[in-house]
Amino acid sequence: MIKTDIIIIGAGPVGLFTIFEAGLLKLKCHLIDSLPQAGGQCSEIYPKKPIYDIPGFPSVLAGDLVDNLMEQAAPFKPGFTLGEAAVDIEKVADDKFIVTTDKGTKHEAPIVMIAGGLGVFEPRKPPIENLESYEDKGVEYIIKDPEFYRGKECVIAGGGDSALDWAIFLTEKNIASKVSLVHRRSSFRGHLDSVQKVMDLAEAGKINLLTDREVVGIGGDGKVENVTIKHKKEGEQVLPTDHFIPLFGLKPSLGPIANWGLEIEKNAIKVETTDYSTNIPGIYAIGDVNTYTGKLKLILCGFHEGTIAVQSAFARIHPDKKNILKYTTVNGVTGF
Amino acid sequence: MIKTDIIIIGAGPVGLFTIFEAGLLKLKCHLIDSLPQAGGQCSEIYPKKPIYDIPGFPSVLAGDLVDNLMEQAAPFKPGFTLGEAAVDIEKVADDKFIVTTDKGTKHEAPIVMIAGGLGVFEPRKPPIENLESYEDKGVEYIIKDPEFYRGKECVIAGGGDSALDWAIFLTEKNIASKVSLVHRRSSFRGHLDSVQKVMDLAEAGKINLLTDREVVGIGGDGKVENVTIKHKKEGEQVLPTDHFIPLFGLKPSLGPIANWGLEIEKNAIKVETTDYSTNIPGIYAIGDVNTYTGKLKLILCGFHEGTIAVQSAFARIHPDKKNILKYTTVNGVTGF
Repeated sequence: MIKTDIIIIGAGPVGLFTIFEAGLLKLKCHLIDSLPQAGGQCSEIYPKKPIYDIPGFPSVLAGDLVDNLMEQAAPFKPGFTLGEAAVDIEKVADDKFIVTTDKGTKHEAPIVMIAGGLGVFEPRKPPIENLESYEDKGVEYIIKDPEFYRGKECVIAGGGDSALDWAIFLTEKNIASKVSLVHRRSSFRGHLDSVQKVMDLAEAGKINLLTDREVVGIGGDGKVENVTIKHKKEGEQVLPTDHFIPLFGLKPSLGPIANWGLEIEKNAIKVETTDYSTNIPGIYAIGDVNTYTGKLKLILCGFHEGTIAVQSAFARIHPDKKNILKYTTVNGVTGF
Repeated sequence: MIKTDIIIIGAGPVGLFTIFEAGLLKLKCHLIDSLPQAGGQCSEIYPKKPIYDIPGFPSVLAGDLVDNLMEQAAPFKPGFTLGEAAVDIEKVADDKFIVTTDKGTKHEAPIVMIAGGLGVFEPRKPPIENLESYEDKGVEYIIKDPEFYRGKECVIAGGGDSALDWAIFLTEKNIASKVSLVHRRSSFRGHLDSVQKVMDLAEAGKINLLTDREVVGIGGDGKVENVTIKHKKEGEQVLPTDHFIPLFGLKPSLGPIANWGLEIEKNAIKVETTDYSTNIPGIYAIGDVNTYTGKLKLILCGFHEGTIAVQSAFARIHPDKKNILKYTTVNGVTGF
C-alpha cells in the first residue's frame, strides 16, 4: 500500500504543478497516470508543439513545459504510479481513501485530487444496434496491426484522414483482398491529396467507394459476415465482408471515474469554485476534468485551481493549524 | 481622448497577461499605471529577486518575468499611460466609462479592469489628532530632498531603517541643526550597524535619542513649532522643532479607487468568482486587488482571473456573438 497526503489522478501539467503548491504546505503527493510517462497530452500527443498561452512564455514546447514543471516539483519528492489507470476508489475509516489501479496497485490518502484532463480517449461508435456484440469478432475501432487484415475483405467507415489513410494503405500495400470505404457524405474532411488518391484508386477499381451511404446493420454467425449499407435515397444493400472498421475518431471519456459517485455534467466533474471540491468531501477535481460556471479548459486555469484546492486540502488534513500564505520570493523554496 | 476596448488600471504582471488573453478575443487594451514603467512591484521593488511559484519556471527573476509578459502581449499592440494615476471614473452614455488620471489624461472604453495589485503605497501615520492640519507645514512622511532640512531642527519618529538612516544622514552631513530621534521602544528593528551608529552619535551628543517615547501632540501657529513627547512612565515634555517627520513605513491602500462606488472588503474589491466582475457592471477586478472566498494573493491566480474576466468582457461588448474558445496550440497567436 502506497501512503501519501494527496493522491493525484493524472500526471499532466496541472497535476505536476499541484505537487509544488502542495509541497509549499508540506503535503506530499503521489500521482497515478495510465500513460507510461508524466506530462499527459503534452508529452503523449504534442511534445514538440509550441504552446503560446502559458503566462510568461511567449512560446514554449509542450515537452519543455513538462520538463520545467517536473524540475519545479522535484524538491517535494513526488511519487508516481505510471502506466496504470486508477479504476476504483473506496472510502475507509479515518476519512481515508484507497485508490486501486487496473494492475491492482493500492494507494491510501486523506485527499484525492482528480486532474484527469479530458480523461481517457474512447472510439466514437456508430449507432448500430448489435455493434458491440461483434467487437473483436470482426468489428475494430482502431487498426493496431495492418497485417491482421491480410487477405481479408474490409469495410472501412468514416470521412476523415484516418479512414482515408487506412483505406489507401490496405489497398496500395495489397494487404486486404478487398477494401470498401463507406462515407455518409460525398465530400471528405481529410487532406486534399489523400482525398485525390482515394478517388484515383476508386476510379481504377481498387477501392470500392460508397459515398452518401451509411452502415446501418451487421450480420453474421458469431463473427462479422456482412454489413447492411443504406444509401440516402436508393435504399439498402448487403455487402459481404470479414471486417467492419468504423474510424470516426476518438472522443474523450471520464472512464471508470464516471462511476465513483461524483456529480457529473457534460462529461466533466462538477466542483465548487471556492476550493474546487466535488460533492464527495475530500475529493477535488482540477484542470480540464472539472466544470463550473465560466469554466475554461486552459492549462493556466488548472494551475490556479490546483493551488486553491491544496489550501482546502490542508485545512481538511490539519483542521487545527492555521495556514499563513508564505511568499516564495521572501522565503525561497527550501525555506518551507 | 484615448479610446479602447478594455482600460486596465495597473500594468503589473496580471494586467500585462490580460492584454494577451484579451488579444486572443480581438479586444484591445490600454493600461494606466502610476509607476513610470510596466511591471508593477516586480519592476519597481524586486526586479532582481527570483520568484519560484510561477508555473513552469523553477525560478525566474521578477524583471525577466515582466520582460516575457511584455513580449507575449506585444503582438496585440497595447497602449500605455504610465507615470499617471487613475483617479476618476465616470459612466457616460452607451455603457462607456471615462477614466481620468491625475494629469488629466482621459480614456474611454466599455470595460474597465482594475489590476491594481496592492494599490498605492501610503505612509503610515501616527494617531495624532491635528496631524493632517500640519501636513506640508512642517510634517512630512517622506524625505524627498534632504537639503530642505538644512539648518532646521528635526524630530524624526520611527524604529526601522528609514528612521535610523535619515537620522544618521541629516546628522553626519551637518544638514539639520538638530536631530531628535523618537522611538516608542528601547530596541530598534533596523540593521545592526545602523543601530550602533545611532547609539554612537547619541553618545557623542550629536543625535538627541529619545526611546520609550512617542510623539503625542503638535503645536504651532500655522506651522510646526513644537511636538509633545510622552515617555511611557515619566510623563510628557514639549520639544521645540521646525519639522516632525514620522517614518513608520508605507502601507498599501486602494487610493482614489476606494471612492468609485465599488464594494470594498478588507481594503480589496469584492468580486464574483464566475467572472471576477465587481458590483458595477462593466468593471472587473483581477489580481491582488480583489477578494472572494478562498482568495490567494498570488500572481498565478491573477493570470487565471484576467483570463476568465476577458471572456465575460467579450460577452458584454459583443452580446450577439458566440465566442468559441480557440487553442493557441492549434491556431498559433497570429492565427486569431
